[in-house]
Amino acid sequence: MSLTGNAIVAQSGGPTAVINASACGAIQAALDSGDVTAVYGATNGILGVLQEDLFDIGAEKAETIEAMKWTPSAAIGSCRYKIKTEADLARIVDVFKAHDIRYFFYAGGNDSMDTADKVAKLAGSQDFEMRVIGIPKTIDNDLACTDHTPGYASVSKFLATQAMEAGRDTEALYTHDTATVMETMGRNAGWIAAATGVAHREAEDAPHLVYVPEVPVTFEKIAADCKEVLGRIGRIFVVAAEGLTDPDGEYLTSRTGAFAQDAFGHKQLGGIAELLSGVIEEKVGVKCRYIKHATAQRNAAHFASLVDRDEAYACGARAVELALAGESGWMVTMERKSSSPYEIELSRAQLSDVANGESKLPRAYVNEAGNHITDAMRDYVTPLMKGEVEVPIGDDGLPSFMRFERKPLDRKCAPWEPPK
Amino acid sequence: MSLTGNAIVAQSGGPTAVINASACGAIQAALDSGDVTAVYGATNGILGVLQEDLFDIGAEKAETIEAMKWTPSAAIGSCRYKIKTEADLARIVDVFKAHDIRYFFYAGGNDSMDTADKVAKLAGSQDFEMRVIGIPKTIDNDLACTDHTPGYASVSKFLATQAMEAGRDTEALYTHDTATVMETMGRNAGWIAAATGVAHREAEDAPHLVYVPEVPVTFEKIAADCKEVLGRIGRIFVVAAEGLTDPDGEYLTSRTGAFAQDAFGHKQLGGIAELLSGVIEEKVGVKCRYIKHATAQRNAAHFASLVDRDEAYACGARAVELALAGESGWMVTMERKSSSPYEIELSRAQLSDVANGESKLPRAYVNEAGNHITDAMRDYVTPLMKGEVEVPIGDDGLPSFMRFERKPLDRKCAPWEPPK
Repeated sequence: MSLTGNAIVAQSGGPTAVINASACGAIQAALDSGDVTAVYGATNGILGVLQEDLFDIGAEKAETIEAMKWTPSAAIGSCRYKIKTEADLARIVDVFKAHDIRYFFYAGGNDSMDTADKVAKLAGSQDFEMRVIGIPKTIDNDLACTDHTPGYASVSKFLATQAMEAGRDTEALYTHDTATVMETMGRNAGWIAAATGVAHREAEDAPHLVYVPEVPVTFEKIAADCKEVLGRIGRIFVVAAEGLTDPDGEYLTSRTGAFAQDAFGHKQLGGIAELLSGVIEEKVGVKCRYIKHATAQRNAAHFASLVDRDEAYACGARAVELALAGESGWMVTMERKSSSPYEIELSRAQLSDVANGESKLPRAYVNEAGNHITDAMRDYVTPLMKGEVEVPIGDDGLPSFMRFERKPLDRKCAPWEPPK
Repeated sequence: MSLTGNAIVAQSGGPTAVINASACGAIQAALDSGDVTAVYGATNGILGVLQEDLFDIGAEKAETIEAMKWTPSAAIGSCRYKIKTEADLARIVDVFKAHDIRYFFYAGGNDSMDTADKVAKLAGSQDFEMRVIGIPKTIDNDLACTDHTPGYASVSKFLATQAMEAGRDTEALYTHDTATVMETMGRNAGWIAAATGVAHREAEDAPHLVYVPEVPVTFEKIAADCKEVLGRIGRIFVVAAEGLTDPDGEYLTSRTGAFAQDAFGHKQLGGIAELLSGVIEEKVGVKCRYIKHATAQRNAAHFASLVDRDEAYACGARAVELALAGESGWMVTMERKSSSPYEIELSRAQLSDVANGESKLPRAYVNEAGNHITDAMRDYVTPLMKGEVEVPIGDDGLPSFMRFERKPLDRKCAPWEPPK
């Protein structure tokens, strides 16, 4: 079972508030193990492996590694590169061989699990013994085989709080700014938008309306919903996932492509928030503001969920445990044993099962009218958002985050030629 | 000196994370005083007075009032109503007389101080003894006669932190999402945008470029600055105040009005962030995301500055102290005695001086190139952003905020007729 060699920890796709905590869990566990000789980071995920752009994480200060527990985004570096060719896969295995990489820990979503799976299989077919374990990561919470995904709860806690806070603005100034639309990430899955619904504890509380991609909707329906809310409480706060679609399956944002042009006369697809804000002003006849946190939402470490952070760390550490026990080709998963009291158990799923699956918001988590969440959604997400990560604050009143020194490894392979 | 009667506490203009703390300071001090018989709230500021829409704050639970210290926005209710006529002013004094309002505490910006000033003078001319004191409030920090304004430091702390956090996203994903523009409030003053510059502790740190309305700029200049930053560190994070102007004094956002149309074919003025994002994609040739916190920025109580909150409370309490001492026609101000160690002293300024003044970001707080801040700005704003307000968190992991029960006062005047 014992396998001596080096490890690579890499991060992929959109950053989160806690993906560094996952990497930290893996790094600290790997550094502690006798089997792992050295722990390397791959700058910008699989792109860093392809470019042989590696650095020695073990050479970093222990306090730098420790500070990953509260530093947002992907400190090792991330990418959106998709493995396109067999040549890419072969190149990855060549780099692994050159640096005696026997352990590969990859934090990411479906595509990353697919990459990890293919790498594991190719290495195996070449009799190069190595162990590949995936660490779940995505704010979108759309990974198969796991109850939820690290990163999701923190973006949810932050955005639900901001909906609550900005909702009070609409409440105080409804005589002037009557409506507000807040956009959340989630092109195909409504998990994040739905989580903001928890802020609506009472009828008065924002958000009053929540729309998700899983339930198609029209401008007319949204306007009618807004009028109902306006008549009932005198103001409107809407949360909309970016990927809302109409009953024909078209993105609502694409419905206006023909009209919008930017400063240079180019066709421009605006975001859902600004689009709905225009729709509400037009069809409901009230002033409407819009909020778009964009990438700021998924990196809000200053108010990250402690449950999320601790689970992220545990998933990273468990990945190393599995590998040291001789396992390969798995992603760490979380199984929910109970919601009240909240209890999860770490488990695992085949990388290929994760790669080919997708987890959508169940219809039962959205009310019949398709414009808010149900108690089932509330019960699901509430335990995940509990606790706050403590972030050290500098003399200037702002958080202190880490950054690696990045001592590069000498290259041993020929320069990589990207596929044409 | 002693004057027995009722008090009104009212809030005006754009909400902040700490305007409720100011109101709380005034309410608690007034409830403690023997001279003030009852403390009323005017729903939606001066509009609430005009409409005789008052409620008894003294009848609220003590813990509700206490919770104003961490509840964002304007819990009493705010408005953007501008007093337009002598009839409005006369109506206000009539309502005050009907309810024996001898104390009027108004938290707001220039316009509110102007209103308060006129009300005080009219009451005096009618031999109705009353004491009117203004409480400074505006996230824009553009009030004259005071070193800074409650509300400013909290929006600054939050946005600087979000620039830092989202900056790490651009840093991790620069191979894909190379540039990001974050928009801050500030139509005429760059105080908020400038404060985010503090997050740039080292060359790598976001924001790399900061633009303010006080220093005119062109699309060409911004593109050139971006290219320089891109060449130096491989990515770009820009903060732009919403009211940027070109050397002709035109808002940059108005420069594209002729081109943009919304879903209904209407001319649409987009925000500066989306505009610059298009400019950067066009002229620099990299993908550019944009972030627009809108009203969520000024209500971020979950990460408000403790210094700001405590000063806000102190300003409210001082307003009552001044009134009880027989003063009227003043706004409470803050005088900075020292930046290191930070020390302020509460003082006061004539309402009319505040109403007619405006505080702009000094040119010396912006670097020569007009694209970032200087150490002078850093020294000015850093002490204000220190400490974090502790917000009680509910069982669902989200903040707990207060809301008034609003026991309405019986109306004693004829219905108000708004000016035509």
